[in-house]
Amino acid sequence: MVESVKRAVRILQELTGASPRLGVTDLAARLGISKSAVHGLLRTLESDGLVVQDAESGKYRLGPALVIFGNAYLDTHELRTRAVTWSNLLAARTGEAVWVGVLVHDEVMVVHHAFRPESVVQALETGATLPWSASALGKAVVAFSSEELQQRLLSTPPAALTGRTITEPAALAAQLARAREVGYALESQEATLGDAGIAAPVFDRTGAVAGAIGVIGPVERLLDDERRQSYAIATRETARNLSRELGALRADGRRAPF
Amino acid sequence: MVESVKRAVRILQELTGASPRLGVTDLAARLGISKSAVHGLLRTLESDGLVVQDAESGKYRLGPALVIFGNAYLDTHELRTRAVTWSNLLAARTGEAVWVGVLVHDEVMVVHHAFRPESVVQALETGATLPWSASALGKAVVAFSSEELQQRLLSTPPAALTGRTITEPAALAAQLARAREVGYALESQEATLGDAGIAAPVFDRTGAVAGAIGVIGPVERLLDDERRQSYAIATRETARNLSRELGALRADGRRAPF
Repeated sequence: MVESVKRAVRILQELTGASPRLGVTDLAARLGISKSAVHGLLRTLESDGLVVQDAESGKYRLGPALVIFGNAYLDTHELRTRAVTWSNLLAARTGEAVWVGVLVHDEVMVVHHAFRPESVVQALETGATLPWSASALGKAVVAFSSEELQQRLLSTPPAALTGRTITEPAALAAQLARAREVGYALESQEATLGDAGIAAPVFDRTGAVAGAIGVIGPVERLLDDERRQSYAIATRETARNLSRELGALRADGRRAPF
Repeated sequence: MVESVKRAVRILQELTGASPRLGVTDLAARLGISKSAVHGLLRTLESDGLVVQDAESGKYRLGPALVIFGNAYLDTHELRTRAVTWSNLLAARTGEAVWVGVLVHDEVMVVHHAFRPESVVQALETGATLPWSASALGKAVVAFSSEELQQRLLSTPPAALTGRTITEPAALAAQLARAREVGYALESQEATLGDAGIAAPVFDRTGAVAGAIGVIGPVERLLDDERRQSYAIATRETARNLSRELGALRADGRRAPF
């Protein structure tokens, strides 16, 4: 590890948190290093647009170069680029919004969002993160991840977001087992009251889970007895097609079509 | 400057370019440093998700943490957050797509994109960058920036994107002077053949130009003799309202309403 780079990233993380504008003194206290050390790091980050200094207050905030880096990540993300067409098809087939997500530490990050076709105003959720345990995408990814990763994530479940978020390791483990059985994961008002999700895992050519794709919408529509099953089937089929496009093998080791 | 942080940022910049997947050897050659130094930087960046290593090829690419940082930048960007409603109003008033941009080095970055109301499928352009000289947003910002910045940008005009991109400093300087006269800037097929833009500058409470807002669309619609004037008026009024919301003073030093 390169200590000064680690500290520079810590500065970006601090500015991403609840205090998006911080001065040199604040940052020195948060990082436990000298003000002159913080000042050197800030000047370096500023020279490439990773942070900017507010002219009036003298405080620092995140810089525009981060958006350019973030977009470059998304543009070259193979799952995401290949998921665009499949997401639109799934949105058209179900009439619901579709999210594609990848696991980042213990959160799911939405890397693509296909709007619900019958669109009223919708906020774009690309880049949004959710605790893995409170989202169908997260459960779908974790259920098909390595035993080691599952144990690690289950040992420290994320905090509850709603009264319905599941935080007991045993209950979450049972949901993961169920997801492996049926090939998709469910979430019901565990992240946002009123919303539910159905998601299935997507695999890459190494056979590892690359992320998940799923529908998201009002619990009344998504988990309605009739629609729930057809949505689950459509989601699972879409995930399978997308996996095939990423070069994933079928269960018997042969390449597509599976 | 902190040399190792500068190098870490260089790695991110290399991976943002034409080669989104690079190995340790490639990066060492590009940065002109040892492979072991690159390895240390990559491990540090990887530990926080700023880069990820491809399991199959062993090469590195940008990581998901950059999207989280980029979104945090956009979420806390005052011009952008305040521009959302004004952009929608301008899009409704003109029937065209609206972009809000800020200057990053010699490029304009789109920080908000309001879709054209009569929407067919439209790609979200948030995070996209354009040479300042090839966009109405860029010209609007630069025209109202400091004399020093103008001279610096005019001394090395960006390369042409189309046969219509203006690259002669004197011609660009004349366009900037015209923009200061009428309060808005024009662009006609200078970035993309068939597209044009009309943009006006937005000021913050210090009186500095914070960015620009403008309409973008087919040249036949935007620069049609009849509509061009009404679009320019609508754009300029919107920019003025947005400036007022950012706390900008009017010319005579009094706060809003101007």
